[in-house]
Formats: sequence, C-alpha cells, structure tokens
Amino acid sequence: MPWDELKPRKFVAFEKELDGISKQTMEDHYKLYEGYAKKANECRRRLNEFDYSEIEGNQVFSELRAVSIDYTFALLGYKNHDLYFGHLGGEGGQPDGRFAEIVDDEFNGVDKWFDAVKKAASAARGWVMVGYDLNDGSIFNYIMDTQNLWAVYNMVPVLAIDVYEHAYVRDFGATPDGRKQYVEAFFRNLDWDHVNRQLGQAEAAKEGADRTGLQEEHPVGA
Amino acid sequence: MPWDELKPRKFVAFEKELDGISKQTMEDHYKLYEGYAKKANECRRRLNEFDYSEIEGNQVFSELRAVSIDYTFALLGYKNHDLYFGHLGGEGGQPDGRFAEIVDDEFNGVDKWFDAVKKAASAARGWVMVGYDLNDGSIFNYIMDTQNLWAVYNMVPVLAIDVYEHAYVRDFGATPDGRKQYVEAFFRNLDWDHVNRQLGQAEAAKEGADRTGLQEEHPVGA
Amino acid sequence: MPWDELKPRKFVAFEKELDGISKQTMEDHYKLYEGYAKKANECRRRLNEFDYSEIEGNQVFSELRAVSIDYTFALLGYKNHDLYFGHLGGEGGQPDGRFAEIVDDEFNGVDKWFDAVKKAASAARGWVMVGYDLNDGSIFNYIMDTQNLWAVYNMVPVLAIDVYEHAYVRDFGATPDGRKQYVEAFFRNLDWDHVNRQLGQAEAAKEGADRTGLQEEHPVGA
Amino acid sequence: MPWDELKPRKFVAFEKELDGISKQTMEDHYKLYEGYAKKANECRRRLNEFDYSEIEGNQVFSELRAVSIDYTFALLGYKNHDLYFGHLGGEGGQPDGRFAEIVDDEFNGVDKWFDAVKKAASAARGWVMVGYDLNDGSIFNYIMDTQNLWAVYNMVPVLAIDVYEHAYVRDFGATPDGRKQYVEAFFRNLDWDHVNRQLGQAEAAKEGADRTGLQEEHPVGA
Repeated sequence: MPWDELKPRKFVAFEKELDGISKQTMEDHYKLYEGYAKKANECRRRLNEFDYSEIEGNQVFSELRAVSIDYTFALLGYKNHDLYFGHLGGEGGQPDGRFAEIVDDEFNGVDKWFDAVKKAASAARGWVMVGYDLNDGSIFNYIMDTQNLWAVYNMVPVLAIDVYEHAYVRDFGATPDGRKQYVEAFFRNLDWDHVNRQLGQAEAAKEGADRTGLQEEHPVGA
Repeated sequence: MPWDELKPRKFVAFEKELDGISKQTMEDHYKLYEGYAKKANECRRRLNEFDYSEIEGNQVFSELRAVSIDYTFALLGYKNHDLYFGHLGGEGGQPDGRFAEIVDDEFNGVDKWFDAVKKAASAARGWVMVGYDLNDGSIFNYIMDTQNLWAVYNMVPVLAIDVYEHAYVRDFGATPDGRKQYVEAFFRNLDWDHVNRQLGQAEAAKEGADRTGLQEEHPVGA
Repeated sequence: MPWDELKPRKFVAFEKELDGISKQTMEDHYKLYEGYAKKANECRRRLNEFDYSEIEGNQVFSELRAVSIDYTFALLGYKNHDLYFGHLGGEGGQPDGRFAEIVDDEFNGVDKWFDAVKKAASAARGWVMVGYDLNDGSIFNYIMDTQNLWAVYNMVPVLAIDVYEHAYVRDFGATPDGRKQYVEAFFRNLDWDHVNRQLGQAEAAKEGADRTGLQEEHPVGA
Repeated sequence: MPWDELKPRKFVAFEKELDGISKQTMEDHYKLYEGYAKKANECRRRLNEFDYSEIEGNQVFSELRAVSIDYTFALLGYKNHDLYFGHLGGEGGQPDGRFAEIVDDEFNGVDKWFDAVKKAASAARGWVMVGYDLNDGSIFNYIMDTQNLWAVYNMVPVLAIDVYEHAYVRDFGATPDGRKQYVEAFFRNLDWDHVNRQLGQAEAAKEGADRTGLQEEHPVGA
C-alpha cells in the first residue's frame, strides 16, 4: 500500500526570517505537520494489519471505514503542509514563468487570477489549492474546507495557501481582515520558482499520460 | 479555466445486455450523468462570469464559495460516472495484466485485494475509488461518501465502483445484502482492459513527472 | 449515557397497502432502520466501555472521535426513520390543524409552504426535515444530505421526508423525475395527525422551557 | 420563517479580565459572532425572497440548496457563540447543581465526565457540545467539526466549548498542547450557574413535551 513511513522534511522557510509570519507561528505549525505524518503512518499501519477476509465493512460505522477516511485527512494534512512550507522563504512579487503564462491565459490576465485567488482565500475554511487538471490541463482555484474536504482527483496542486486559522491568528488576529493581511504576507514570502517546479511536474505528468494513447476520446460522439 | 463544455459520452455498456444490471438501471443512471455534465457546465459558466474584483469572498456564505464547492460535486459526478460506465460491458473474471501485478504486490495477493475492495464497497456511502498515487506509485482503495467527499489529489483513479443506492436498488434491493450482490455483478461485467488502460495512463503520468527531476527529495533528511 | 437499548418499533404503515410505495421498498427500508438501531447500540456500548482517563483524544484520527461522530449517524438514522415510518399509512390531503396554521403564517400561505418543501425535497441529498425551532417557535424546511449532515440542535422535527435513493428508486426510478413522483406519493400517504402530534410536543417543549424564566434576553440591547 | 433579525448581544465576559483568555482573543472572537449574525440574517432574507413556485430545486447545485445549508452554518455560528460567551466570566471550579448530578449519574462520577469531555475537546475540530437529549433526558458530549457539522436535533445544548483554533491560538499556540491549556483556562472561567440555567430549560422542555401524552411509545413491542 501507499507510502513508506512518512517523515517530516526540513524546509528553508524555517531557517529564514519571514516577512510578517512569525517564527512562533511557523514552529507551532510544524508540530501540526509532524502530527499529520504520525497519524498517517498510524492509519497506514492499521490498514496494513487488518485481516480483510474477516473485517467488518459497514457504512454506518466500522473501523475500516473510519480509518480509511481519516487516513485521507492525515495524508493530505501531510501533503498540504509539505507543499505550503516548500513555498515559503521566497521573494514574493508577481507570478512569473510558466505559471504566469497559464493563469494569464485562463483568467484573462494575471491580475484577474490574483483577484480570484484572494477572494477564494476569504471564502475557504481551510485551504485554497491552485490545481492543475490532468484531464485538460486547466488551472482552478479549489476551495478546501479541511485537509481533505473538497479535494479532487486527477489534479496536481501547484500552489497551496493554508487559510486554517492556525496559519494566521497569532500574527494577524482571527478576523476576516486578519486573514486578508496574512494572505498578503503569504504572497510576499512566496517562492514562485517552487510553484513553477510543481507546475512543471504537473504538465509533464499530463504529457506522459497523453503519450500513451490510452485515453478515451473525450467526448465521444454523443 | 478547466474543461470545455462537458458532453456526455457514449459507452459500449449501453449497447449490451449486462449480467444482473438492468437496462432500466443503466438508463436512469445515464440521466444522472447527463445532469452532472449540465451542472458542471453551469457552475463553470458562473465561475467564468464572476467579476473577481467585485465579488464577495466569505467563508460563511457567498456565491463564490457555494459555486466553487458544488462545482467539484458536479465535475466529479461527471468524471466518476464516465469512468464507471467505461468499465462495464466486459467479461469480468480475475484481474489481469499490470493491475493484477500491482495489487498482488501491495496487498500480498490478488485475493486479499479482492477481499479488501469488497469490504470497502460495503463500508462506503458513495464510491470505492481504487486510485494510483502519483507521489509514490502506490494503490489504495479510497472510500468516498459522495461524488466529491474524501477524494484526494495527486491521485489517478483506475477502478471506480459506484455504490450509491441508484446503482443497485432497483435490481438488488436497498439492503446491505443487495449491495453485496450488486458488487458481485459489477465485477462480472467489468472490462479489466479498461482498468489497465487507466493504470497505464497513471503510471505514465508518474514517469513523466519523475523524469523532470523537479521533485523535492522526499523526505529530506529529518 | 443516552438511550437504553434502541429497539426497532412496529408501524401501522407496514400493515397497509400504501399508494405508490411498494411493500418491497418498505421492507428493505425497514432493514436499514434495524441496522441503524443496531449500530447506534454498538457505538453506545463502545462509548460506555472507553476508559476516558486513558483513551486518546486526537482530532486527526482517534477511536473516540470516530465512534462519537458515526454514533450520530446511526442515532439519527434511527430517529429519522422512526419519524418517517410513523408518518405513513395516512390519508394524505392538505395539511390541517396547527401545522397548517403555523406554515400558513410563516410562508404566507399553505400552498407556498408546499412549493417550498417540494423544492427542498429536490435540492436535498438525504432528507428534508421540517423542524420547529425551540428558540423562537419558527418552522424551517431543513435540507439534510445524510442521516446526520446539516442537522441543527434546539430543533424538534415535525415532518421528515426521506429522499435518500433507497426510498424511491425501486418504485419510481433514480432520476429527478422519479424523486418528484415519489414525493407526491409520500404526501398521498401522509398522516397529518401524526405530524400534528410532533408539533404538539414541540410547542409544549418550548412552552415548558419558556415558563422557567431561565432564558437569556434575546437579544440584549446591543 | 425563523427568527427576527438576529442581533449580537452583550455579555458580562467582555467586561471582565478573564484568566488566561486575552481581551484581544475575545474581541476578535466577537467579530466572528457578529459575522455569523449578519450572514444568518442575509441568508434568511434570501430565503424569504425566493419565489418557491419558480425557484430551481437541484441537489447538485442550486441557490436554494446552497443558501439553505450555509444558513445552518451561520445560524449555529451565532447560537454556538451566544452560548459560549454566556458561559464565560464565572469562577470555574467543579460542576455543581443539577448538572453535576446528571453527569455523575450518567458517567459514574463527575471526574469521569470531566475526563471524557476533555478528551472530546482534543478529538473535535470545532466544538464540544454537551447536549441534553429531549427523547430520553440523557447527556452526551457531542463532537462538532464546524459550526454545523454533526449537530443533532431533539437536543438542547447546555455546555459549549469552542475548540476552533480562533478560540486559543493567540493565547496558547496552535498545538495540541496549546489547546489543552486553553480548555483548562475555559473551565477556570466557566459560570456553572449559566450551564445549569441551560439545563433547567432543557429539562423543562422535555417535561413540557412529555406532559402532552403525544409521544409514540418507545419502543413499541417489536
């Protein structure tokens, strides 16, 4: 089954002074990330140890159900933060490179994408995940309410903005205005090269799949 | 933004007599699929027409929030069924090809994977999605409670089992036993080549991404 | 802790021929109700047996968390169906008695409430729960997506319409139109006296609470 | 329909120095409460203005659906905080009065209830709601993940512990340990009389309903 033992990684963001996001916030945040890794490993171990010929499968309540579902909370808690921490420690500024190109194209201007993603960051309860769709190569600002709520598959995330309250309350306050100031700070510390490396992988993944010629024609006839 | 106008496709499953799954069930089911395409297109249109400099972003209630989230319900409603209908019309039997190889390896035997996926099908409220993880190439039986609930990203689905009640109530009854009989019937009609074509794309996607050399080292010495 | 052993009850609806809702649907439906009672009892037993000084409380994954939450799914699965089955076996027709009075008042006409509740029945994924709010004595058509999703507290349900697919797929088909026909059939079989008995309890509950004089003033001059 | 215009109330907790919970946290928290009231009023207004003979009812996406559901988020966001703020400003200490009696009885000791509720506070993602069940007069520590997630009906809340991160991150840090310290602080500032006043209303509500004689026999011999 998936993943060897997950291990929290080190990130350059923790060796720098960020602009507006405090060391204390980052250190507390890292402890949550460690917790997600630990719980993902625990769920994984439970899932590996189940005897599937004997175990109960029940959709009202069953251990299999509970562990399988909260495993995705733990796993995405790990993956989300792994991406987020990797973003930080950069110089901010305007999007550039391929990312700028693709959002310029899809949103009719980089500024319009910026408006859209900031509004999404006010409208989400957990994350905004700017994701690349492997079916059609489009970009979308996904709203996620928790670590695993309203994620979609066939999607590779390229830019992850944590808007859980733990990301900003200490530094900016728990209010909607506090969140807005935090989102501005996030973008001041963003490493756009890191974003573009995610996008590079996403586009290469799509190209790899496309080259197989195994896709359905989409749409067929109708 | 993503996807041109989604159009419901045609599937060979609708030109055949399936074993245990009635024409009526399939025809009603297809109407739901058409409904997801229509609603995904409607949400997409709304999202394209928003003026993001003016629109309210609010995490308690806002149109942006509501449309963005239920868009994922509609979109995955389309994608889930597109995959599911593509599976049907086959000869069933044991998993073969690369899929058999990979689950044999991960679950210590194809039979154990079969046990596990059938238990997952009893424990889910909507779908079991056997998915390929683009980070590590593992396979997992994801439990989904609705079209979009507990999906994960960086995952390519290779085998989709619809366990919404609409898939089986008419033919097998609304009980847990009815569901089990339906899952058996699903596997009798499954086209394993179709599953292997999804897996082929998933593996090629991972290889494409891996070749870029853009990944983080994972984990980086903790 | 709550509830003695839950036991599935008998209902007059099962001794009658309903108009449009088949015996087979009702019998399968009853098995689900028995399942909810069984699982609620199991969760309750687990909750009673936990050693709370030792047990892990963890918000990512913990047994305490999993059992506590799916207990509400099981419990409301029982309560929802207990109310629903109690409604059926009546003569249908227009709302009458106190219920008619109260919705006439709140929706500016019984017909308008009927329009509203039918639209809610098309918009919900699980239940429409017409509920009486103990704070202010108002009536609202709550949309519920599962047995326990978007329920509210301080609310006494007076009219429960099951729109899970198990309630209608066999008799009317899995389509939106099938659901509409089922909702019409539901109302043809509704015992309005049963609804008015729920409302009688709800109003008496509010009166009981009000007589204590223990409420906060609401609102207290802001 | 329910509720006149909701208005944020004043609470004694805001005129005191709390032990461990800062003024700044309380003031930011109050702004969220005002936001819930405002949004509940907005949703209510939209629901009142819909033309139910014309409006679309659709379970994939429809305005009716979106507003109806997030209305419960806004409404419970208001009610939850109204209860929580009312609790604070007390002297803490051990539970007393009727509340002590009832949890002593159900949990075999007040200390055991205290253990259980603190573990629940670590296992929840949003609230612990100690609720009184109107069916059987039992007490349960409900885990809620958001303002409206996993609430149940026929339940009157008597003790509400906010464990959203906004309640504790500024004062105690975003970690699990920070949350534990906050929960201790919450109990040091709790006004048990306020809790007992909620319980008094809950018990009176049940008595009021019981006196009607309108209940189903529960269970009716199966």
